[in-house]
Amino acid sequence: MRSVAYIGESRLQVGEVEGRPPGSGEVRVRVAYVGLCGTDLHILHGNMDARVDTPLIFGHEMSGTIDAVGDGVDGWSVGEKVTVMPLDWDGTCPACQAGNEHICQNLDFIGIDSPGALQELWNVPARTLVRMPDRIALDAAALVEPVAVAVHDVRRSELEPGQRAVVIGGGPIGVLIAIVARRFGADVAVIELDAARRAQIEGLGFPSLDPRQVDQVEWVEEWTAGTGADVVFEVSGAASAVFGATALAKVRGTLVVVAIHPTPREIDLQRVFWRELRLLGARVYQRADFETAVELIADGVIPVDLMITRIVSMDDTQTAFADLEAGRAMKILVEVGPEGGRA
Amino acid sequence: MRSVAYIGESRLQVGEVEGRPPGSGEVRVRVAYVGLCGTDLHILHGNMDARVDTPLIFGHEMSGTIDAVGDGVDGWSVGEKVTVMPLDWDGTCPACQAGNEHICQNLDFIGIDSPGALQELWNVPARTLVRMPDRIALDAAALVEPVAVAVHDVRRSELEPGQRAVVIGGGPIGVLIAIVARRFGADVAVIELDAARRAQIEGLGFPSLDPRQVDQVEWVEEWTAGTGADVVFEVSGAASAVFGATALAKVRGTLVVVAIHPTPREIDLQRVFWRELRLLGARVYQRADFETAVELIADGVIPVDLMITRIVSMDDTQTAFADLEAGRAMKILVEVGPEGGRA
Repeated sequence: MRSVAYIGESRLQVGEVEGRPPGSGEVRVRVAYVGLCGTDLHILHGNMDARVDTPLIFGHEMSGTIDAVGDGVDGWSVGEKVTVMPLDWDGTCPACQAGNEHICQNLDFIGIDSPGALQELWNVPARTLVRMPDRIALDAAALVEPVAVAVHDVRRSELEPGQRAVVIGGGPIGVLIAIVARRFGADVAVIELDAARRAQIEGLGFPSLDPRQVDQVEWVEEWTAGTGADVVFEVSGAASAVFGATALAKVRGTLVVVAIHPTPREIDLQRVFWRELRLLGARVYQRADFETAVELIADGVIPVDLMITRIVSMDDTQTAFADLEAGRAMKILVEVGPEGGRA
Repeated sequence: MRSVAYIGESRLQVGEVEGRPPGSGEVRVRVAYVGLCGTDLHILHGNMDARVDTPLIFGHEMSGTIDAVGDGVDGWSVGEKVTVMPLDWDGTCPACQAGNEHICQNLDFIGIDSPGALQELWNVPARTLVRMPDRIALDAAALVEPVAVAVHDVRRSELEPGQRAVVIGGGPIGVLIAIVARRFGADVAVIELDAARRAQIEGLGFPSLDPRQVDQVEWVEEWTAGTGADVVFEVSGAASAVFGATALAKVRGTLVVVAIHPTPREIDLQRVFWRELRLLGARVYQRADFETAVELIADGVIPVDLMITRIVSMDDTQTAFADLEAGRAMKILVEVGPEGGRA
């Protein structure tokens, strides 16, 4: 069967791999679509070479149908539409014991630490499956994972209805956070440098601003009548953005660090102290986030057509990354299964 | 009457000022003792020149007795033993409206933004008074304010009984945080560079470590059986300490930023993300913190004799600061009132 693997030195290889029947406790999924994300781009650029074994079949945002069920798996049948929550925890470390399995101290992130979804048939532990309602198309189903990221970030922030949130960075995750936060009852503004993205964001009904043209601190002060934002989501990953983020939050406001900052960043701790701010790390998701994400897609809250810029073949994966990197796309899906398409 | 004022350029002046009767809503306090703290040292060094008007009679850790009561003040009588919670808020800003008066967006910190306690007779708003039980001596009463800081920091951390806390920096506030956290039911370890301070800390029953001799991450890992600390209090103010602090906390652990960091600091946001850490700013205190602090002193939980290294006259204030700066003292009190002493 065909697969796409990272083979080191910024190179991908489309090749053939041998499939195998699902093992005990496993399900074999016929993959339909795989979404490409920023983490995959980090893998391609070699930023995660110390962590990954090459060749690595990557991909962790996906949809598909069950192709075969292994021994000891109950409750799943061939042909069911699914996505996968790509986390495998040990269940025994202190984090797991405390109920934080999603940040297990020995977490296996499937698609990074073990083979991912860019292969026609993919064996995964049955406990990672998430059921898709029939009314969610297979392409939309590939968005469940990034929507679950956004749901997790918003839940982690403890944002309440009627509050005001600022999202710094209007890429796919930033836009999804804005949509989820609004669905949770908040007023949301988005800070984004790219004019085309700002136009899309405004088309979704969010005020947006370019911090090079507008003083973002004054803007947020005015927008919040002198209070400051209840929650600020830092999704851009830029050093200057995270430095400036603390100035946007109200007294006892919250700053959620969503983006990955591979190097240490300067934080204005004087401001953190002065306003008794709260800064929260947020990583991946929990099952409840996946379930909410499925509901949001099923209910039409997520603008699927806007989010999926286009769908490419496995052969075009490397080109798709170039477009993502250049900001020429929100989300690009790779069509893996020959039976893909709007189910 | 005599007073001590900061007059700029690292200089103090002991002088005479005119007293006045308490205004409406005010009480005149006959000051007994004033404790010197790190913030006062910042004032002396000119770090707060942009904020303070000179000459500034400073001092905000104090004890005294009521000398006169102004019009419209109920519930207070001449001769009562008191301390002052030195915060004056506007009551109208968004922070006050949200119940966070202690971090009012226009806070007047008495002793910084308006005249403080280093004068024989001090007029303060009656609402700032805190009653002292008879069994608390006037010198011990001057410790209520720094104890309230520690109580606030521990309450802010949401530390629970049975949890493990690490305090980075074993000066007066660090030691008080350790004592309060232990009183709240936690196991506490203190990281401190100075050998003499480590000996005092160990004398109080806390494990302590010198991070230049011991790998603090390994030590905390072992101490917490691989989990990491539930709460880390950063009290040292050192850039390297705040950078290293994130490595000590457990998954979903809390880092409380207690120290003032006047310049931006590098934070390991990768670690904040990876472990979903929570970083909290903590500033001053609320009335409940003062009330708990009074109880802790009344109950003998605070080792008053250890905390008060010595008591000096107003004329020796400048010398006392030199000793504080050199780490030759925990807390030095200035005796202001001629009737001071253990009440």
